[in-house]
Amino acid sequence: MQSIHDVKIDSRNADILISINGTLYPRNQAVVSVFDSGFILGDGIWECLRLVNSGIPFLREHIERLYEGAKAVFMEVGITPQELVKRLFDCVDANKMRDGVHIRLMVTRGVKATPYQDPRVTISPATIVIIPEYKEPNAQKFQQGLKLFTVNVRRGAPDVQDPKLNSHSKLNCITACIQAANAGADEALMLDPLGFVATCNSTHFFIVRRGEVWTSTGQYCVLGITRVNMIRLCHDNGIPALEKQFSLYDVYGADEAFVTGTFAGLVPVYEIDGRPVRHPLCADAWSGAGPISLRLSKLYKELCTSEATRTLA
Amino acid sequence: MQSIHDVKIDSRNADILISINGTLYPRNQAVVSVFDSGFILGDGIWECLRLVNSGIPFLREHIERLYEGAKAVFMEVGITPQELVKRLFDCVDANKMRDGVHIRLMVTRGVKATPYQDPRVTISPATIVIIPEYKEPNAQKFQQGLKLFTVNVRRGAPDVQDPKLNSHSKLNCITACIQAANAGADEALMLDPLGFVATCNSTHFFIVRRGEVWTSTGQYCVLGITRVNMIRLCHDNGIPALEKQFSLYDVYGADEAFVTGTFAGLVPVYEIDGRPVRHPLCADAWSGAGPISLRLSKLYKELCTSEATRTLA
Amino acid sequence: MQSIHDVKIDSRNADILISINGTLYPRNQAVVSVFDSGFILGDGIWECLRLVNSGIPFLREHIERLYEGAKAVFMEVGITPQELVKRLFDCVDANKMRDGVHIRLMVTRGVKATPYQDPRVTISPATIVIIPEYKEPNAQKFQQGLKLFTVNVRRGAPDVQDPKLNSHSKLNCITACIQAANAGADEALMLDPLGFVATCNSTHFFIVRRGEVWTSTGQYCVLGITRVNMIRLCHDNGIPALEKQFSLYDVYGADEAFVTGTFAGLVPVYEIDGRPVRHPLCADAWSGAGPISLRLSKLYKELCTSEATRTLA
Amino acid sequence: MQSIHDVKIDSRNADILISINGTLYPRNQAVVSVFDSGFILGDGIWECLRLVNSGIPFLREHIERLYEGAKAVFMEVGITPQELVKRLFDCVDANKMRDGVHIRLMVTRGVKATPYQDPRVTISPATIVIIPEYKEPNAQKFQQGLKLFTVNVRRGAPDVQDPKLNSHSKLNCITACIQAANAGADEALMLDPLGFVATCNSTHFFIVRRGEVWTSTGQYCVLGITRVNMIRLCHDNGIPALEKQFSLYDVYGADEAFVTGTFAGLVPVYEIDGRPVRHPLCADAWSGAGPISLRLSKLYKELCTSEATRTLA
Amino acid sequence: MQSIHDVKIDSRNADILISINGTLYPRNQAVVSVFDSGFILGDGIWECLRLVNSGIPFLREHIERLYEGAKAVFMEVGITPQELVKRLFDCVDANKMRDGVHIRLMVTRGVKATPYQDPRVTISPATIVIIPEYKEPNAQKFQQGLKLFTVNVRRGAPDVQDPKLNSHSKLNCITACIQAANAGADEALMLDPLGFVATCNSTHFFIVRRGEVWTSTGQYCVLGITRVNMIRLCHDNGIPALEKQFSLYDVYGADEAFVTGTFAGLVPVYEIDGRPVRHPLCADAWSGAGPISLRLSKLYKELCTSEATRTLA
Amino acid sequence: MQSIHDVKIDSRNADILISINGTLYPRNQAVVSVFDSGFILGDGIWECLRLVNSGIPFLREHIERLYEGAKAVFMEVGITPQELVKRLFDCVDANKMRDGVHIRLMVTRGVKATPYQDPRVTISPATIVIIPEYKEPNAQKFQQGLKLFTVNVRRGAPDVQDPKLNSHSKLNCITACIQAANAGADEALMLDPLGFVATCNSTHFFIVRRGEVWTSTGQYCVLGITRVNMIRLCHDNGIPALEKQFSLYDVYGADEAFVTGTFAGLVPVYEIDGRPVRHPLCADAWSGAGPISLRLSKLYKELCTSEATRTLA
Repeated sequence: MQSIHDVKIDSRNADILISINGTLYPRNQAVVSVFDSGFILGDGIWECLRLVNSGIPFLREHIERLYEGAKAVFMEVGITPQELVKRLFDCVDANKMRDGVHIRLMVTRGVKATPYQDPRVTISPATIVIIPEYKEPNAQKFQQGLKLFTVNVRRGAPDVQDPKLNSHSKLNCITACIQAANAGADEALMLDPLGFVATCNSTHFFIVRRGEVWTSTGQYCVLGITRVNMIRLCHDNGIPALEKQFSLYDVYGADEAFVTGTFAGLVPVYEIDGRPVRHPLCADAWSGAGPISLRLSKLYKELCTSEATRTLA
Repeated sequence: MQSIHDVKIDSRNADILISINGTLYPRNQAVVSVFDSGFILGDGIWECLRLVNSGIPFLREHIERLYEGAKAVFMEVGITPQELVKRLFDCVDANKMRDGVHIRLMVTRGVKATPYQDPRVTISPATIVIIPEYKEPNAQKFQQGLKLFTVNVRRGAPDVQDPKLNSHSKLNCITACIQAANAGADEALMLDPLGFVATCNSTHFFIVRRGEVWTSTGQYCVLGITRVNMIRLCHDNGIPALEKQFSLYDVYGADEAFVTGTFAGLVPVYEIDGRPVRHPLCADAWSGAGPISLRLSKLYKELCTSEATRTLA
Repeated sequence: MQSIHDVKIDSRNADILISINGTLYPRNQAVVSVFDSGFILGDGIWECLRLVNSGIPFLREHIERLYEGAKAVFMEVGITPQELVKRLFDCVDANKMRDGVHIRLMVTRGVKATPYQDPRVTISPATIVIIPEYKEPNAQKFQQGLKLFTVNVRRGAPDVQDPKLNSHSKLNCITACIQAANAGADEALMLDPLGFVATCNSTHFFIVRRGEVWTSTGQYCVLGITRVNMIRLCHDNGIPALEKQFSLYDVYGADEAFVTGTFAGLVPVYEIDGRPVRHPLCADAWSGAGPISLRLSKLYKELCTSEATRTLA
Repeated sequence: MQSIHDVKIDSRNADILISINGTLYPRNQAVVSVFDSGFILGDGIWECLRLVNSGIPFLREHIERLYEGAKAVFMEVGITPQELVKRLFDCVDANKMRDGVHIRLMVTRGVKATPYQDPRVTISPATIVIIPEYKEPNAQKFQQGLKLFTVNVRRGAPDVQDPKLNSHSKLNCITACIQAANAGADEALMLDPLGFVATCNSTHFFIVRRGEVWTSTGQYCVLGITRVNMIRLCHDNGIPALEKQFSLYDVYGADEAFVTGTFAGLVPVYEIDGRPVRHPLCADAWSGAGPISLRLSKLYKELCTSEATRTLA
Repeated sequence: MQSIHDVKIDSRNADILISINGTLYPRNQAVVSVFDSGFILGDGIWECLRLVNSGIPFLREHIERLYEGAKAVFMEVGITPQELVKRLFDCVDANKMRDGVHIRLMVTRGVKATPYQDPRVTISPATIVIIPEYKEPNAQKFQQGLKLFTVNVRRGAPDVQDPKLNSHSKLNCITACIQAANAGADEALMLDPLGFVATCNSTHFFIVRRGEVWTSTGQYCVLGITRVNMIRLCHDNGIPALEKQFSLYDVYGADEAFVTGTFAGLVPVYEIDGRPVRHPLCADAWSGAGPISLRLSKLYKELCTSEATRTLA
Repeated sequence: MQSIHDVKIDSRNADILISINGTLYPRNQAVVSVFDSGFILGDGIWECLRLVNSGIPFLREHIERLYEGAKAVFMEVGITPQELVKRLFDCVDANKMRDGVHIRLMVTRGVKATPYQDPRVTISPATIVIIPEYKEPNAQKFQQGLKLFTVNVRRGAPDVQDPKLNSHSKLNCITACIQAANAGADEALMLDPLGFVATCNSTHFFIVRRGEVWTSTGQYCVLGITRVNMIRLCHDNGIPALEKQFSLYDVYGADEAFVTGTFAGLVPVYEIDGRPVRHPLCADAWSGAGPISLRLSKLYKELCTSEATRTLA
């Protein structure tokens, strides 16, 4: 495994309890019907969250994004946000988890009468699954940085399947990931329909150019909560940050580059399409994260700790 | 339910046996892990097939399409085509089914070590599920025809998620279906990225204009086996048939229109975007299927019978 | 009639005088040649204006937009802006109108020697028509709000027919309106060529998200004067307002939505594509205009009154 | 006047009778209300036809295209095709016309209650106007050929305003024509949204390459009846003819080029974007129409004569 | 070197004579001014040709393409086709070459008064350079086949720089080639603006599917003479051949694949994006060229020999 | 000559020394091999610079852009930025130049083993050419202004050949320039792929609207150093300046327009597509540069003087 999730599997995860529609099951009994909309059709919306000191950073943003995504695809979550939060903590508490935990929260349109795409043949409420696992980012990846490769697989138009959706229909990202792996890279850099830089396949992409932090307009990526927090941290700490259209020309000439995500926070990038990530007039080899990347990484970790909470507020 | 699958659920389906990775389970015990690639990510390829006189029409085409789709997404089916066919018939035979049966055959990338999109974290062979159900098209829908509505949701570009793929990531079709339902229609008519007519959300779309049968180029739809057979039947029976680019202008001025699919064969359309389907100089109300639609429907049923088989050959 | 112009026709309008090339005619004698560029080709530019206390709000903006539009299509208005303003007031004064009046001001390329599109076969100066009518927005529509439906008909590219033009070639908007009516809605929501939200067919579209007012970039809509005034009012009253690219995902998750136009000012929206307009975490039914919509509506009415004028300044 | 309609105005046209909703009016009394959908909105569909020996060539094709266009924009013509044909001949017969006549037949959505785009505020049946004029193509233009210039104004997408429609919303063609005139040319050559060659602003465009006749796919032009007849003539006379995608590269390297239309039939082109129209290895100056252009022109004139008719049949 | 030109440099090439504007120079004295349009701007058109038995296969096609390209970019070659052919053979004859020779024929817009892009500052006739070299395709590459990788660099639109042009402005192909090399491949597979398969960076691309030979529509590649000859050979030998739109889905499921070019004729492909080139139901490893590739390769070699000529005719 | 470079050729330029790979040659001996990547393939990156009081304004920006461009196309410049600056001044000093000098600095990928596009067949370091010439903008052009014409040739997508690159592959700009010349204009105005205004063929384009300076987003033009300086001057001098998407509608209605470039600084525009450049309500003929154009021109000249330098720093 070379990907960003290239982590040792924590042996404690063999014994976790998983919440399905409010009931807790051991891992090996955590199943869904083959008639479930998620399995048959990728018809669902999900979140990933971190557990920090028994709280979840940015809890409200995650819950709001989940309900917004469900509304976008005309799906009822079926329980209130408050009930959903309770289920989340019931699950992690039952697992006696406090920290270093990654949670996958999934809501699908429920069980179908027959395997068919029309929502009108659904016969159950939404299926709600919560998987909490002990999972920490690989520290060595942070030291070394990632190798990206710009792939031919593109982000799509919002009138087809809105790339803002964090859905169970992930084939676009998966095929991008495969092509990057075929080129020997960790993660795929993906362009938007106009040929500008959009995002990575499972993370958001940032560059640092002459003291400014740039990321794409956000119109062709999942509405990243870590992404928004990075921009907020820049604004709060006097680092100019722009959401803007830019091309690979700008990327190849950047001083630093990094990716972000709920799981790993900020991870630096050391090479893109065979070009080392450093200022074009700089001949020295880059090593480790650049100064702005390092600073943002530290700020973000602090933010996660300070914003971890158990209530929707 | 107003959709094309608006059928009475056959009570016999409560007792069917479903094949999962070669083992047969009663319907209510037919489950997959919540870590399955299909459930988490819509990462799978599927087929639907009909059972006619204990055989499956166009069996080789279906099996070939399944393996081609799997290769397109860089996924191993894991067993040979011959073994897969054997599993299909083992399942329907165990159910003592002979006719009037619809089969959903699904292959996903298998179980993940952790919920993450990268194929490199998959830890099992492909998951193979076979669901056979007693299911017949609604005869009344055939009499009355369908009402279509052209939706804002588009078919996508092949460099994002190839619309030729018959995958588990179906959100594009589902949101199109929802918008058509919101407009009071049975099925959505979908345009391609250039604004030309592509397909319906779960069926293929044909018009008849001045004695010619037209369907889209096929570049923006699932590689329909029924679609190909309709074109073949036209060629074999002296009906001019064209795969071509055309727009709603051509649709609104058509003499007849119909949709096709493995499940229901050919179903006529009586109204599109509020316009009755009939020649623009014709004032009489259309009723039932037009002459070419009727002829093709009959020819197609005969073809299904004659081509039903139990071997790949 | 379900549209935004669903108003009782004021009986006083039967007796209005209409200005054609500077001469006043009773309504039933207000005619143009069948050789007029407007009739044959939709080759003209128009404005709508309101009469408030005998003055016209934003008069200079309207006149400037008219001349700018004429220049864009290489057409001479033929009289000076000052002369045109005089004609406007000559017409409303002759009608003894003071308030509650909607004015349609139209300038076409004039009469052709023969029905042909080339401007070089025009044989008269521009045709200038002014129609003033008593017309007030329907108060009930404001209470209840509008129902929008996103249609398949798109706004076009600027290199085809610039959507900024307020021209007599309106077929794009009309077919969008028809499709929305077919879906049972009041007004069509239209996407731009990239699939982002552009505008409604006869009004401009705004959403309110988490305290911010968003409208499209304006590149794919008529250069709306009410639209610009709404943004100005936001800026002047401490309400964050953004002209930005956004998609239906953002619309479905909005807190409020409204449309604007010279005729009706601001009209709230209560439903879009079957989804109620309210925050995704909010379960209560929305009723009437939201707080920011209400505030802007009030501010706009005051602005109209304060900026009504009879001189170009 | 430099355009293709650069003809002497026939003095007999001063006294023609024009049919409006079935009543005949002298030219100077032929008027429509300023509330007409055609004048206000370009909301109408039209045909041009030729009178040859008291008959109209391709009459059925023209009438069918008119009703098809009306259906496409959801407009009722209001009278039967047979009644419409009768009106056509009533008008030309009342004018005692037999030959050398060009007829403009226009159908708009009718009179509005108030100037507003929504079809739901229309209060009359369709407005039907028939203008017959003595008008012959300029023979000198045929000798000399046309000068074309490829303009920046593009043909649009079918999901905006279908370019197949022959409507009253003609601003796209008009602005293209203006830009060509600004470059000193007779007629504009227009590209499609992908940058391929589509059509001219008021005529259809053909090239001859190495013995083959090429024209565009037809997806981005009015459904030309002369265009279809040229292709038919090619097929019937052993000249290979292709409707295909091609670019300016292919045009600049063509052997011959010509434009077609109902009014002028076939008119040769002698220069495109400053390049003489002739085989790239040929140094001799081209003069007059090339051999295939001449042959098709002659064949087309014969076809018009043989297919002129007074009945729909 | 891993590319298709991965050939041993023939030592005889050190002593070749190169023709510049009709004069022969030894290789190390073959130079052009730094003010040449080719050097400064990539402003030129070129051909490559083979010498077979002292003749050049498809000589007329190459010369015609050169003059067509020059006309497309509004450039005068300055000498007649016959004079150009004479120069070609003068050069190869002076080198006493008869066979196994690759010729690069280049025509640029000539010398500039100053380094500026406007053709109006050119002060000399076209620069004509002819480089003949001993160069044979690598037989081992033919045995083994090529490894292709689909890159993010696309073929462009015809309204930007027509991909049909064989020009000196080659940066698009070069950056595609670089990205493929970065992924460890021999040659880049490139998509068109809509995401369909267009061509390779320096060769044309074909697949064989179920007995049919497919290549792209040709709208996004250099007008390949070898490409046209392959299609001609298919037609003449009963092999169905289609120029059509297709996507990577179709490529990954192909039975065979190969590339073509004047230099190497036909070269098989054994792997594309990590997928072996063979039928999806076929588990056996592919080795060497497939049967249709082999047959076409043989037929093409025979054609080259039979069509080698020294006259334009 | 009508173009922006319509200058008298300074007779002193006949005797200049040109630097090639560090050696100085008289103009008529300044040559490169016909195997050079620049000549064969347009495979190089270049800069133009001005000499002002023996210094070069914005020297660091130019050098940085050169290295950034080289990195973007995966090319090694081969010497350090400091060495390159030394070569620049060695060359101008050897020519005893101090002022009124335009310098073309070109870096190509070097000499090829054989004429082929793959960078892997390059056998020398980069070719570095420096051409300094006495060259001053034409003062009369500044007085009179330029005439622009919007052409059909478009700027391209970044995924084809990034328009930000200042490369030797200039055919796109050249064909645009030719089409403008064919229309009788000085310079071409070019649109971007979406139909919005991008840039001129050899200069950057600005408009002044109601006191604001607008230029395109910069995504479809060379990363202009003069362009950035103009925006900087606006910001520093209280003139609102926006980089934004806009269309020809906005251009035709502008108050002023001008183009910029390293060579000529700011040059006003007096006519675009036949429309005079002035406010649409203004009837007076425009003459000379408008007030904001004049002010920026003066400010820019001062900036060039103050920022001319001989060191990178």
